[in-house]
Amino acid sequence: MSQDDTPDLWIDHPTALMEIRAAFEAYERALMTNDTAALNHFFWQDPRVLRFGPSENLYGAEAIAAYRTARDVTDLARTLENTKITAFGPDLGVANTEYTRLKSGRRGRQTQVWARLPEGWRVVSAHVSLLD
Amino acid sequence: MSQDDTPDLWIDHPTALMEIRAAFEAYERALMTNDTAALNHFFWQDPRVLRFGPSENLYGAEAIAAYRTARDVTDLARTLENTKITAFGPDLGVANTEYTRLKSGRRGRQTQVWARLPEGWRVVSAHVSLLD
Repeated sequence: MSQDDTPDLWIDHPTALMEIRAAFEAYERALMTNDTAALNHFFWQDPRVLRFGPSENLYGAEAIAAYRTARDVTDLARTLENTKITAFGPDLGVANTEYTRLKSGRRGRQTQVWARLPEGWRVVSAHVSLLD
Repeated sequence: MSQDDTPDLWIDHPTALMEIRAAFEAYERALMTNDTAALNHFFWQDPRVLRFGPSENLYGAEAIAAYRTARDVTDLARTLENTKITAFGPDLGVANTEYTRLKSGRRGRQTQVWARLPEGWRVVSAHVSLLD
């Protein structure tokens, strides 16, 4: 597909929005149950995937999976606020949310870029941080 | 464009990569010179755009522009490391980078989602945070 014959990006395509929301919610359930296999499943299995976490910069699916195995799970439970999903064309979307940890009360933000790849919707870039 | 006739996403389309890199670099120059008009120009003028900053969650182009006007510019200069740009299809890309502020030495990360809209390449979602 050349750039010249690309139509304008369809923003908030209903099917894309619906599918990204379902993937986002499934990811959140996996996070809350520390289902590391599911969490890894949702990430693009590629060296170009990356995840910036509150205290770590992880490059590539292997580094992200290693982090999942080793992470502290004593303060996982959280509530979400201001979850915003926007789709750009049929195959891409961004899911942003604020969160508050139930135990520590710490507040953070999560950005996920979701892409519809041949294998399904996957997180291709993630950024999670605490509000300073 | 229906979902069914969409070809596989072309990852790292050379033209998209080149154009996103040029936009990313122009944005960085505007940031270093505190050219607020240019910075606002690069952001999608839409209520759905958002920017998570180290200490603020900004929703909509107006909130982002108001923040630009009021921000502290005493520690702007920074060096970039591990800048990674990945394009998904001809119209979307993610630019991630680590940075270190020259004055304070504080380390952070920046994620920008760039979309090629009718008006040009624009940041549709941004997340900037300090490494905890």
